[in-house]
Amino acid sequence: MQYTEMSKQELSQVKAELQKKYDDLKALGLNLNMARGKPSVDQLDLSMKLLDMLNSSSDMMSSTGMDCRNYGMADGLPEMRDIFSQMMGVEPENVIVGGNSSLNMMFDFISCCMTHGFPGCEPWAKQGHIKFLCPSPGYDRHFAVTEYFGMELITIPMLSTGPDMDMVEELVSQDASIKGIWCVPKYSNPLGITYSDETVRRFAALKPAAKDFRIMWDNAYCVHDLTDTPDQLLNLYEECKKTGNIDMPVIFASTSKISFPGAGVAAMAAGPSNLIVFREHLSFQTIGPDKLNQLRHVMFFKNIDGVREHMKLHRNLIAPKFETVLRYLRTELTGKGVASWTEPNGGYFISVDVMEGCAKRVVSLCKEAGVVLTGAGATYPYGKDPKDSNIRVAPTYPPVSELEQAMEIFCVCVQLAAAEKLLAK
Amino acid sequence: MQYTEMSKQELSQVKAELQKKYDDLKALGLNLNMARGKPSVDQLDLSMKLLDMLNSSSDMMSSTGMDCRNYGMADGLPEMRDIFSQMMGVEPENVIVGGNSSLNMMFDFISCCMTHGFPGCEPWAKQGHIKFLCPSPGYDRHFAVTEYFGMELITIPMLSTGPDMDMVEELVSQDASIKGIWCVPKYSNPLGITYSDETVRRFAALKPAAKDFRIMWDNAYCVHDLTDTPDQLLNLYEECKKTGNIDMPVIFASTSKISFPGAGVAAMAAGPSNLIVFREHLSFQTIGPDKLNQLRHVMFFKNIDGVREHMKLHRNLIAPKFETVLRYLRTELTGKGVASWTEPNGGYFISVDVMEGCAKRVVSLCKEAGVVLTGAGATYPYGKDPKDSNIRVAPTYPPVSELEQAMEIFCVCVQLAAAEKLLAK
Repeated sequence: MQYTEMSKQELSQVKAELQKKYDDLKALGLNLNMARGKPSVDQLDLSMKLLDMLNSSSDMMSSTGMDCRNYGMADGLPEMRDIFSQMMGVEPENVIVGGNSSLNMMFDFISCCMTHGFPGCEPWAKQGHIKFLCPSPGYDRHFAVTEYFGMELITIPMLSTGPDMDMVEELVSQDASIKGIWCVPKYSNPLGITYSDETVRRFAALKPAAKDFRIMWDNAYCVHDLTDTPDQLLNLYEECKKTGNIDMPVIFASTSKISFPGAGVAAMAAGPSNLIVFREHLSFQTIGPDKLNQLRHVMFFKNIDGVREHMKLHRNLIAPKFETVLRYLRTELTGKGVASWTEPNGGYFISVDVMEGCAKRVVSLCKEAGVVLTGAGATYPYGKDPKDSNIRVAPTYPPVSELEQAMEIFCVCVQLAAAEKLLAK
Repeated sequence: MQYTEMSKQELSQVKAELQKKYDDLKALGLNLNMARGKPSVDQLDLSMKLLDMLNSSSDMMSSTGMDCRNYGMADGLPEMRDIFSQMMGVEPENVIVGGNSSLNMMFDFISCCMTHGFPGCEPWAKQGHIKFLCPSPGYDRHFAVTEYFGMELITIPMLSTGPDMDMVEELVSQDASIKGIWCVPKYSNPLGITYSDETVRRFAALKPAAKDFRIMWDNAYCVHDLTDTPDQLLNLYEECKKTGNIDMPVIFASTSKISFPGAGVAAMAAGPSNLIVFREHLSFQTIGPDKLNQLRHVMFFKNIDGVREHMKLHRNLIAPKFETVLRYLRTELTGKGVASWTEPNGGYFISVDVMEGCAKRVVSLCKEAGVVLTGAGATYPYGKDPKDSNIRVAPTYPPVSELEQAMEIFCVCVQLAAAEKLLAK
């Protein structure tokens, strides 16, 4: 029965039962964490052989005859560029392989836009008040980068097909102070949805008022499928070739959730004009990335097929955790009108919308009972969810047994917060 | 006999002999490189056991109980911070260990000054025309970073005690648009000299007109001694504590020329205010450095004594190369008035001042004869040596046999260019 259809008396009774359950669970004194999208220890163990790839008797030469131990090769190892080229759907010569963090490359790209910008345009820092579009719920660290550089963040609602493209088109075509948009196009963080073909085509066909408008296309979960029917993402880069917008997208990926989060390899890909600007930046910033770690990755994965095979091993570990979360949501919350959620085919998150005005309360109740969740509001610009409704659940890190305990508590808290809310009206 | 004391006829004869030698050497069709400060293959081989430190059965935990494979630990591994703390002479808690490139950390620090700056001051990018001091001859990549960000570069002459401190003090105390100075205080690039105690004390005692004046103290060669009588550098950080200028120095070091240039570990150290500003920057830029590579380094070197022992192995390989270069300079050029040079106790370079107006010609003659040198002028801001005199010789990369050939050619070219110059008068 929907909570909203209950009488005050019925609701009070439900609430009392929930409170009892909650108190009992809280008394267990648990310490569980579903806050951040971290791979589990089991997942990290999948890549341990990576550490055997290089030893003191290894060949240190890349295919180009360069000693990978020494300085140089700002674009990264050709073999690693090939793998990312296939992951990202961009020609190898348009791929730059960097250090261990794609967030670092995104930050540096935005920083480069701020201080230097693009031919024929002032640097962003000299253009006065500028804005960035933030499809929400979205990834807090993306939004934070543009906030750090003083931009105004504009919330774009997320639909089941991706960002609300009517709104994106209207804003972007009219306002030259809008400089870009953050996108996680496949298995988006936190919704887990993949942008529809139409959405991708509409992105490629944008006619921005700002000549230096950029799409930050963070394809973080491009090979992170969890089902036999994975989502298919249309290739934005190819679509932009057709529309003549090849300098609009800047594409990112990494092996952080393929090999090791702390010691993986990151890459970016873009059209010629962006690369000229960013390669100049790089030429002053560094004498080259860690090519030995790239060499390790090349030897371990060999090619894109090796990456895909490896991702099946991750799937074996992660899919049961997603299923656990979804099982609890379905069993405990269906038909009560207290929450809706996504059922993604991949990625790292399940997004739960609890009753409006209840997200903070749910996160707080969970915390008191020993379950840490991503802060309520974190998935919106400035950490402010206008409906106080969205909660990002990250199932990958805890073992299934802990996840079951955490989800039991979570579902009780979602219901308890809803009952409290309705009774307070 | 000094060339300047020769008659035209004598000089013409000398020149003809040199030209003959040059043509014979050129006919050998050599391909030699003394351009950049790259470790040789032999030196890289010294650190190969570093690659055995981690394998698939290794313990992945740091002393703090953190899994080094996963996200986190923006300041780097405590054990690695300890080693750098001792290399740099700054408390471990004031050390941040980063990725593989100290140049990258310097660039990011300057970039952070440009876009954000310091409490109570506007970001540098909003302060209009700003300037940076460049002790010259110096390191081209340093100067290039500040040039990239649009600053005016001011040449400060290098004396045998370090930068001309009379000039530094006068400029810095009067001009608030001067935001900092680049320093390689020990075995400076390219002179190989170490700043005197008085120079360091005068740096610590500066009273800059700009509240946000910073000393970029790149201690790149802090443990890179080549003789039994190594230079001693006074600790600027400790001196700045005494003068109350603790927020002035920003100190950098790396293992690029200790372990691997392409896969080493870099670090910076600074006082509290700089760290607050830069840690905020880092918190948006990345979720942490490559801690596995740091762990490898900790296991390989163990502590500062391990680093010092390792540097003796480098010395065994490099010292004979420096001696080779110096032997040729002494034997071929002494008493002719065509060149002067430094005889460093460490570092990576020997600096040669050829006859005024001859450096470009020498580099060009060498190139035609198959010897690549650092471009003439590269050691000055904007690549312009006002006297066209300084040439940086980098002895480390070629084997001794090649170095001998290269130096034979170099010495002929230095003399030939001088003879040409004097005859053209």
